[in-house]
Amino acid sequence: MTPTFHITSPNEALRPLIQSKLDNLNKPKGSLGRLESLAMQICLAQQTLTPSLAHPCHLLLGGDHGIEREGVSVSPREVTWQQMVNFTKGGGGVNMFCRQHGFHLRIVDVGVDHDLSQVPGILHHKIAPGTRNFLHEPAMTEDEYTRTFRVGIDLVDTCHAEGCRVLCIGEMGIANTSPSSIWMHLFCHIPLDDCIGAGAGLNAPGISHKRQILHQALDRFLSTLPPQLSTVNCQLSTDYVIRYFGGFEMVAAVAAMLRAAELKMLILVDGFIMTACALAACRLYPEAQAYMIFGHCGDESGHRRMLNALHAEPLLSLGLRLGEGTGALCAFPLLDSAVRMINEMNNFDNAQITKYF
Amino acid sequence: MTPTFHITSPNEALRPLIQSKLDNLNKPKGSLGRLESLAMQICLAQQTLTPSLAHPCHLLLGGDHGIEREGVSVSPREVTWQQMVNFTKGGGGVNMFCRQHGFHLRIVDVGVDHDLSQVPGILHHKIAPGTRNFLHEPAMTEDEYTRTFRVGIDLVDTCHAEGCRVLCIGEMGIANTSPSSIWMHLFCHIPLDDCIGAGAGLNAPGISHKRQILHQALDRFLSTLPPQLSTVNCQLSTDYVIRYFGGFEMVAAVAAMLRAAELKMLILVDGFIMTACALAACRLYPEAQAYMIFGHCGDESGHRRMLNALHAEPLLSLGLRLGEGTGALCAFPLLDSAVRMINEMNNFDNAQITKYF
Repeated sequence: MTPTFHITSPNEALRPLIQSKLDNLNKPKGSLGRLESLAMQICLAQQTLTPSLAHPCHLLLGGDHGIEREGVSVSPREVTWQQMVNFTKGGGGVNMFCRQHGFHLRIVDVGVDHDLSQVPGILHHKIAPGTRNFLHEPAMTEDEYTRTFRVGIDLVDTCHAEGCRVLCIGEMGIANTSPSSIWMHLFCHIPLDDCIGAGAGLNAPGISHKRQILHQALDRFLSTLPPQLSTVNCQLSTDYVIRYFGGFEMVAAVAAMLRAAELKMLILVDGFIMTACALAACRLYPEAQAYMIFGHCGDESGHRRMLNALHAEPLLSLGLRLGEGTGALCAFPLLDSAVRMINEMNNFDNAQITKYF
Repeated sequence: MTPTFHITSPNEALRPLIQSKLDNLNKPKGSLGRLESLAMQICLAQQTLTPSLAHPCHLLLGGDHGIEREGVSVSPREVTWQQMVNFTKGGGGVNMFCRQHGFHLRIVDVGVDHDLSQVPGILHHKIAPGTRNFLHEPAMTEDEYTRTFRVGIDLVDTCHAEGCRVLCIGEMGIANTSPSSIWMHLFCHIPLDDCIGAGAGLNAPGISHKRQILHQALDRFLSTLPPQLSTVNCQLSTDYVIRYFGGFEMVAAVAAMLRAAELKMLILVDGFIMTACALAACRLYPEAQAYMIFGHCGDESGHRRMLNALHAEPLLSLGLRLGEGTGALCAFPLLDSAVRMINEMNNFDNAQITKYF
């Protein structure tokens, strides 16, 4: 059974007080634009007028995908474990940006198809060496699904116990745009072809092949759907969709997001795959979205449409498509700016400025 | 006479080497998107494969405007000096973001209409207590114009001597969107009305009044133009346009940008007013633009069109309209990310990753 989360929307009673504090900072009203709405969201989530981004943590979750066997990715499966090892040495994209922004990085094997147990610097929570191939069968069993949820929850609990109030999540999993595209299709009712892109760099024939495979997988899924799950409008079937296609790293991310929302932590959401995880989390618990900040709109075809479906406005749009959480990490200084603004900026009472609006 | 600058475009011979270094970093080719083109620009400007953002400096230039007397701004003129004093106390928007990103801040009175000589923390380079009203006459004399250029040059020389390789410039000057709009119109040939916006928060009647005043000023300017200056296609007339409408803080910014480009420093360009200064600088010396990084597209009507006229793609688009350089400062971490990427990220030679295409 999937654990139950007790996620509540932030109490809106504080909104007028936060707005009043923002409006009294010594600047033309609203002139710090998106930083002001960001400060509002952070203050509401933390239920305070003096927010904090204490002990930011980044979870780098790794897992392999059965569907990779169908040639849906430009990169071979072994790149997953090689990159996981590379991250432990500090030379990956995620490492640089964690160092830059002071994030504590946890590199977690949730389901990589390689024995990483002897690699220092990797946390071992492997459910299985990669998911099953969802062209033929569900990617994971119910038991695996429940255990993967537990991994995400426990990781967040550890971060929270250390004092973490802002959580970023990244992924490493060759072929994981494929399950993300199907989640997007099934959760947003956007035509599947519009949900499928180049991933890490497929050419046109590669994308065409990926489309063909994903259509086949979807057809099989729909034809084998038990009658009681034939609607996606209930949590039971949402769970089933997540489990049928999801990677271990993705399901752990969904669980981590839900647990973080339950604990009223801020969740910094990365690109296409992490937005698909945020989407899945919000389909399970719509209240979770109030704790999510969307860091970056990437280059993957469909990302913008998925963000639109969530009514989410990303902070950055830099054409990144590396994954690992890099886009979200790059957006962190803007959260810091928003928090500094509301905590440190003078106001019209103490700055002796003629109030202009 | 305006000083002459010896500004040369970066030598393009290094481009293939930089591209090759970028392509060999352990990530899918091009997958760090805008950070890669940013790294390319920085490396070219500094003519190196290992760029540096040493000792970032921020110039906060203040000046008042004769045109303010015509009621073209929602804020009264005294806000300029009050904010200058406020900046010395550390509580302004610019202060927070300079602290956040490690910028050395210089607060400079270039032409504020108030005696700030006894205020600690302000550099005194006042040319005059505000410009003349360009509704009736040129904003500054030739002598004032030349002396203002000198201020910008000397400030940059001081920064450069300290080791500064990246310069950000912000402004404080009530009513300075008005001269910026006219510069934009005259340099980009965009209809004047499309260059005029709300500034710090004018309502519709306020904007309408501002339009009327600026049209009058423009008509007078055109009718009094000496015949030998009747084309804007030469440096002489560009100088004249800059001098006729510009604020002291704006002209000092133009000079600072040109000197920085001459010294091959990176120039981080802020919002509407600083983009107008960048535009003026590029009309004088087109080669200067290779050293400019456009930080932020603000909310002021016309800013996007001015950026388009420069073929400039801003890093951020957050709806800020505070000025002071705040938008540009918020973009600085992305420069840092780009530099860390090319300096610190593993490559396919040392990371033992299967090179994917």
